[in-house]
Amino acid sequence: MQFTINQLAELLGGEVIGNGEAKVNNIGPLDKAGPGTISFLHNPKYEPQLYTTKAEAVIVNRKLQLKEPIEPVLIAVEDPYSSLTVLLEQYQKLTESAKEGVEEPAFLGEGAEVGNSVYRGAFSYIGKNTTIGNNVKIYPNAYIGDNAKIGDNSIIFAGVKIYSGCIIGNNCVIHAGAVIGSDGFGFAPQEDGSYQAIPQVGIVILEDHVRVGANTTIDCGTLEATVIRSGVKLDNLIQIAHNVEIGENTAVAAQAGISGSAKIGKNCIIAGQAGITGHLAIADRVTIGAQAGIPKSVTKEGSILLGSPAIDIMNFKRSFTHFKNLPDMAGRINDLEKKVLNLPPSEK
Amino acid sequence: MQFTINQLAELLGGEVIGNGEAKVNNIGPLDKAGPGTISFLHNPKYEPQLYTTKAEAVIVNRKLQLKEPIEPVLIAVEDPYSSLTVLLEQYQKLTESAKEGVEEPAFLGEGAEVGNSVYRGAFSYIGKNTTIGNNVKIYPNAYIGDNAKIGDNSIIFAGVKIYSGCIIGNNCVIHAGAVIGSDGFGFAPQEDGSYQAIPQVGIVILEDHVRVGANTTIDCGTLEATVIRSGVKLDNLIQIAHNVEIGENTAVAAQAGISGSAKIGKNCIIAGQAGITGHLAIADRVTIGAQAGIPKSVTKEGSILLGSPAIDIMNFKRSFTHFKNLPDMAGRINDLEKKVLNLPPSEK
Amino acid sequence: MQFTINQLAELLGGEVIGNGEAKVNNIGPLDKAGPGTISFLHNPKYEPQLYTTKAEAVIVNRKLQLKEPIEPVLIAVEDPYSSLTVLLEQYQKLTESAKEGVEEPAFLGEGAEVGNSVYRGAFSYIGKNTTIGNNVKIYPNAYIGDNAKIGDNSIIFAGVKIYSGCIIGNNCVIHAGAVIGSDGFGFAPQEDGSYQAIPQVGIVILEDHVRVGANTTIDCGTLEATVIRSGVKLDNLIQIAHNVEIGENTAVAAQAGISGSAKIGKNCIIAGQAGITGHLAIADRVTIGAQAGIPKSVTKEGSILLGSPAIDIMNFKRSFTHFKNLPDMAGRINDLEKKVLNLPPSEK
Repeated sequence: MQFTINQLAELLGGEVIGNGEAKVNNIGPLDKAGPGTISFLHNPKYEPQLYTTKAEAVIVNRKLQLKEPIEPVLIAVEDPYSSLTVLLEQYQKLTESAKEGVEEPAFLGEGAEVGNSVYRGAFSYIGKNTTIGNNVKIYPNAYIGDNAKIGDNSIIFAGVKIYSGCIIGNNCVIHAGAVIGSDGFGFAPQEDGSYQAIPQVGIVILEDHVRVGANTTIDCGTLEATVIRSGVKLDNLIQIAHNVEIGENTAVAAQAGISGSAKIGKNCIIAGQAGITGHLAIADRVTIGAQAGIPKSVTKEGSILLGSPAIDIMNFKRSFTHFKNLPDMAGRINDLEKKVLNLPPSEK
Repeated sequence: MQFTINQLAELLGGEVIGNGEAKVNNIGPLDKAGPGTISFLHNPKYEPQLYTTKAEAVIVNRKLQLKEPIEPVLIAVEDPYSSLTVLLEQYQKLTESAKEGVEEPAFLGEGAEVGNSVYRGAFSYIGKNTTIGNNVKIYPNAYIGDNAKIGDNSIIFAGVKIYSGCIIGNNCVIHAGAVIGSDGFGFAPQEDGSYQAIPQVGIVILEDHVRVGANTTIDCGTLEATVIRSGVKLDNLIQIAHNVEIGENTAVAAQAGISGSAKIGKNCIIAGQAGITGHLAIADRVTIGAQAGIPKSVTKEGSILLGSPAIDIMNFKRSFTHFKNLPDMAGRINDLEKKVLNLPPSEK
Repeated sequence: MQFTINQLAELLGGEVIGNGEAKVNNIGPLDKAGPGTISFLHNPKYEPQLYTTKAEAVIVNRKLQLKEPIEPVLIAVEDPYSSLTVLLEQYQKLTESAKEGVEEPAFLGEGAEVGNSVYRGAFSYIGKNTTIGNNVKIYPNAYIGDNAKIGDNSIIFAGVKIYSGCIIGNNCVIHAGAVIGSDGFGFAPQEDGSYQAIPQVGIVILEDHVRVGANTTIDCGTLEATVIRSGVKLDNLIQIAHNVEIGENTAVAAQAGISGSAKIGKNCIIAGQAGITGHLAIADRVTIGAQAGIPKSVTKEGSILLGSPAIDIMNFKRSFTHFKNLPDMAGRINDLEKKVLNLPPSEK
């Protein structure tokens, strides 16, 4: 599979600067690309690599002002990152063979219904009365309980566990080892100090285009559903507790945790290892920094928070600057006290 | 399945306020309940919903003083949360069919012994000489190694991995993807900078009524056992390192981590994302706040700690209040210095 | 299996102090050891246990100066921890039966090649054209995709998931539930607020002697490979994002997270729950403390960092000491202000 740069530029709606007839057959990062490889520049931080790269061609932003002469041919586009996506999708289609059909042994429970063009890997399990849509891929060792529902075009990777009754929408991707629908952590303390488990009879609903990362866990609701709205993207090793609701197109990075009954708005960004307390609400378009801890509701849309407990990011940064200088500050207070102590007594 | 409110009140030992002959057939939260649904009020924060709910009936605390007229019938009980538990247990019994028997193919190693009324799901694995008690449920794709032991009435959900030799007590629940008995992280540094693994020949012991959350990991002891005492409740994605001991009825929330050889007391509460250093001891009834980091032993029973490194929660909160004001504090020191500098020289 | 202390001392190259003809048949910790058990003292913190232990024999450091008379026979060695390792390895060899052969049903894809003396557990899956080296152990319910490669002597524990195309070196150990090669978390934001997934067409490469803990996740590279160099030791529940590179012999403790495209040096130590931002570089031999958050590159070799955001550990400790005293510091500023306010007006 070899393409001219002109062909790719046409696919991407980009403008060629240099020899459009040069050929590429591979995609790679700037610092490792060689002849025949097309690369891209998205993060300005890596611009210096543009002047040293051995790549055949580089996709760049239309607005880029070159600071030095360069070797590779350029394809200037509106958004290099989106263009890369388009290229990679084509690349993936050409290089990956589509899985379809059943590898035996695979388990299909009584009353289960399976759509067309479905892949069911070896040792995959589909429980009773569960419905699987069209073009679904269920990889080996995945488990889907009874009375569950998987929408069209969704991909369930190896070893995913989906508890009975859960509902997965269309075009969802669930990565290996993720657990959907485990019991919420709800217990009634008893007088003797022990705990009585509160039965968790709810489910999990994933709407469409939801992405769940590897080994992420999403607990079922106590009575109703834990709901992950359309377009939500969850990274790996995230904990979503019972009765949580996450609004459309919110993205959550790895190892973040959201406690029970929290309601997260739309288009939020929650960075890695952040933690959100239960029974609170986060407004739309809120950004929560890495390792931040959110102790209470965030009502202002578009807030950016950092720290544990979290406060406005600018305030956090200002306070943290002084935190680093605390030994100095303490010394200055000592000096002031010595000086003031040695002053003549106040008149009063 | 439909019940009169009088019937439910009798089951719960509660007092009916309103029309006890009204019928309910469902359980749901206050803000989503409609006709025919029974709901409950436990957290006072949600009391306003009591005055707007469309629920047919609501379970409330005996001591509740109504602030406004209400629509639903009330069932007044000592503890609404426990009453909910009772109702949900009945609901679960009525709606869930009990799993029993063997789904083929399921693997049973030589010399393994399986009790009565056991469920062994498809693709579940039981190793050599392993003993499974009565009424145990082993879901699909679960793995139990050789020479292990599972007590009566325990539930091993899909894809759980239990290493050889581990001992699980009676009435335990282990959620999907949890790993019990993986090697502890023990390495002897070598002169060339590499690490030599210390063989971990111990096991994990879960006593009775232990609950392990989804994708939680519990490492085996180096020589003896990592021990989780009766009644301990572990949430999802928790790390328990080798040689740890957790005392009775301690509850640990999601994504917390306990390092090697730490000894945790009874009836402690460890909140989400907290971390505990190795080789230390935590007294009974200690509460460790979310994201706290415990660097050394906690000897005082009932302590409540917060921060990283953690200190007494009241001290942390006081210090944090000032942390937020550090820019102001720095400004005041600047002002003081200017004033003091402009004072007449001290007499001395 | 019973040995004289003299026999063990010879194995360890140690010197016997006491009756070398006494016999031992077990290994255990000082505080729980009894007659017939050999124990060891490595951490000086536990020296008091040496004077009360019931152990038959104890392995100690050659340089140990006894403070009291003791009961057990001693074996004095250069490094008790390494000696314990040697003993445990022998113990493990004697007590564990080696797994070999195939337990049916196990899946072997078309074109896959399997070496000699391999164990393939029941319900394990090996995809098309995948190559498995000699003496490899693949435990039940493990999944290895297509076109992957596993080197000699590696152990893949139960329920591990290795995506297509990934390369695992020789002598690697991957613990239960770990996921190798899941898609990186890369999305191009769209104008309507939704995200377009960037296809991740890269792989994961584990070099030799790499250890991956239970339920740890390692994402594949976007274009090329996420690379874990020889001798790296990863604990449980760690997140390694796409395009990360970890240098030789670096050790990472449980629940730490490394964001996309970060490049970690050799011989680093990353403690539990630490988080490292993406697109940065960490120098060799850097130590990152528990729960620390690394916001930018660390260029100085051997740095030790703590805090979130992390700073030099000594600076962090000094600042934290003052943080705890902030209420006092605020009070002193108040006092100073009162005094200075009551002073006669400055001359100027």
